[in-house]
Amino acid sequence: MNFKAYVCGLCGREFLPDRIRYRCESCYGPLLIEYDPVSSAEKVTAKKLETRRPGVWKYRDILPIHSSTEPVSLGEGGTPLWETKTLASSIGLSAVFVKDEGRNPTGTFKDRGATIGVTIAVEAGFKAAGTVSHGNMGTSMAAYITKAGLKGYIIAPENISSERLLYLSVYSPKVIQVVGGYDEMYDEAIKLGEQLRVFFVNSDNPFRIEGYKTMAFEIVEDLGWEVPDWVVAPASSGGLASGLGKGFQEFKKCGLISRMPRMAIVQPTGAQPIVRAFKEGRKTVEPMKQPSTSIVHSLGNPNPPSGARVLNLIRETDGWAVAVTDGETTTAQRDLAKLEGIFAEPAAAISIAGLRKLVKLGKIHKDEKAVAIASGFGFRDPGDIGKVVDKALIVDISELAAVIAREVKER
Amino acid sequence: MNFKAYVCGLCGREFLPDRIRYRCESCYGPLLIEYDPVSSAEKVTAKKLETRRPGVWKYRDILPIHSSTEPVSLGEGGTPLWETKTLASSIGLSAVFVKDEGRNPTGTFKDRGATIGVTIAVEAGFKAAGTVSHGNMGTSMAAYITKAGLKGYIIAPENISSERLLYLSVYSPKVIQVVGGYDEMYDEAIKLGEQLRVFFVNSDNPFRIEGYKTMAFEIVEDLGWEVPDWVVAPASSGGLASGLGKGFQEFKKCGLISRMPRMAIVQPTGAQPIVRAFKEGRKTVEPMKQPSTSIVHSLGNPNPPSGARVLNLIRETDGWAVAVTDGETTTAQRDLAKLEGIFAEPAAAISIAGLRKLVKLGKIHKDEKAVAIASGFGFRDPGDIGKVVDKALIVDISELAAVIAREVKER
Repeated sequence: MNFKAYVCGLCGREFLPDRIRYRCESCYGPLLIEYDPVSSAEKVTAKKLETRRPGVWKYRDILPIHSSTEPVSLGEGGTPLWETKTLASSIGLSAVFVKDEGRNPTGTFKDRGATIGVTIAVEAGFKAAGTVSHGNMGTSMAAYITKAGLKGYIIAPENISSERLLYLSVYSPKVIQVVGGYDEMYDEAIKLGEQLRVFFVNSDNPFRIEGYKTMAFEIVEDLGWEVPDWVVAPASSGGLASGLGKGFQEFKKCGLISRMPRMAIVQPTGAQPIVRAFKEGRKTVEPMKQPSTSIVHSLGNPNPPSGARVLNLIRETDGWAVAVTDGETTTAQRDLAKLEGIFAEPAAAISIAGLRKLVKLGKIHKDEKAVAIASGFGFRDPGDIGKVVDKALIVDISELAAVIAREVKER
Repeated sequence: MNFKAYVCGLCGREFLPDRIRYRCESCYGPLLIEYDPVSSAEKVTAKKLETRRPGVWKYRDILPIHSSTEPVSLGEGGTPLWETKTLASSIGLSAVFVKDEGRNPTGTFKDRGATIGVTIAVEAGFKAAGTVSHGNMGTSMAAYITKAGLKGYIIAPENISSERLLYLSVYSPKVIQVVGGYDEMYDEAIKLGEQLRVFFVNSDNPFRIEGYKTMAFEIVEDLGWEVPDWVVAPASSGGLASGLGKGFQEFKKCGLISRMPRMAIVQPTGAQPIVRAFKEGRKTVEPMKQPSTSIVHSLGNPNPPSGARVLNLIRETDGWAVAVTDGETTTAQRDLAKLEGIFAEPAAAISIAGLRKLVKLGKIHKDEKAVAIASGFGFRDPGDIGKVVDKALIVDISELAAVIAREVKER
């Protein structure tokens, strides 16, 4: 790896990779890691990548980890990219691919960020690590901190659901629920972490974004080194879209692809700070007062730290940003399961709802190739899907033959 | 593939592979598929296998599917085999490996059976398929039937939990809850299926066992073509252990390994028909009247169809069978999560509880290498783990600094 500099995602200022850094010293924007393009190009070739076992760590030539460091891994990445048929035609597109991130170790794409974040914590000699999270990221970090054998602290809001709290609590880290504002605990944890030598890998940590970018690498490889026309992703903190964009940019820099896909993000109508900023033509995101969504809990971030960078990516790639209702998301969740056999959580299925809307709006055309990111597993958070699926028949054993005979004949 | 014959797992009678078969015509025992050992040995080499992408279908040379048939796949198999350290030493063994089957598409090892079962249904021209299941197998079959675009029927007992019912209902097949005995609906479905051309892949279907055997193949490969001393697996219908045994037997026949591992099965104390038969020295399993386990629901089969075959495997390999309490299972589930970062469902963690017991009983010695099968994902069925994990701290934001400072100092 050829870690050249940290670059601020907001103001562009560069910093030396002399130590672990997090935020910009000038504007407090989230930093991104930049590689030396020349020596990267020497190192990363399609041929070399194709022979390696799938997963985040096959890309370690362009990850900010020393080649001698043992990864803290639970087998993340290498998730399937499904070409859908029935779903694609129901949306009115000829080619829709679904990147099934629910297949990660804790059931979400967050594991890609956690593996890098916890590995760098170990490499840098930290004895403790943690995160501030509403749920999925906390569970993911808790699993990786356990695997690494570090002490850990998962800081969560006081009002998370009992199920989310359970999933945070099964691993070794201490779970601390905080009464107070989310933004406040987010910043406080980073500050405390620096004082107390606890590596807090919050959603906009540069090392986390490094993990997310591998999703883009896999998409390109699985499409036979082709770039899709569109990539549609859910957005909360903006880290997922930021990482995806970085992945495509780096493959382009390495000469492995020749153009960027158009990037679209999707948010729930009740929590759409990035979509609003996009529509209003702003360069930065105005925090929302009270985000509200009854089901897409993971996407309720009112003040997305990577928001400005995501707005940039959307505009640079001539992309778009849409909001969908919770009902549209539940319908998309049902369609994905019933038509393709992929059971995704609401926060993942929202990308399918967004894709549908982008087609309706005339943004995506029927002969374009689109990839939707299904970011998490339905078994972790089924949301409201129970309300839109068919009720089971209840029959006596003596009626079974007649019922099945009738069902077989139907249609 | 060199599909030579069907062989009855009970009486040993052979049948031609002239058509899809299920049970023995003489004794109604579950059939197994036998390959031509000579031509298999010609085909299957370590070198050839090592270059293929991980997953069930890399072993298609020894699967009963025509080489021209497109697999109905959701990316099953290729699950990680973790070498545990803290867990191994807590059990008192030097080498404990955990095969993490929760990483399959619907979160259980059942997907290995479903991919083969549904693929053969398509290959044989069936337009509909189904299964009879309490939960995990039904969900798995539902997902694969959806992927194949077939009609589907999932038959479940009337009294399954609302969560299990939801997971069955999200895919395309019709869910039919039956009021009546489980054994009755199991046999009735197979009979009806033959009449109505619906391929019912129930737990003892020979094609399902073909999928399970790939677990053994992967274990051997991931251990660098070594055979572990012990393999410990949960048992309900007995299909999992039957498939594992078949896998090791076939690799031995192909000359890829030189011996079998010792095989052990684990059941909950409230539902232990195989363990009892083993202790009593019987060749077949006596059905249990009222199996009862409060948490290990997937392992409640009172009349395991592959029971006799499993008893055989245990005795041939000088293995063992143990029962553990639900409390021991929950403790094992917590240990696996807290020590290794692997969150397994109770029916999976039971193999760790069994392993612990086998060590206590002096069956497994401290320098022996053991593999435990963690058959399913904890996010699908957390069981009682909530009762044994630490409660979260609840603090005000103003106290956070003091709390973390205190925690960091503690050991």
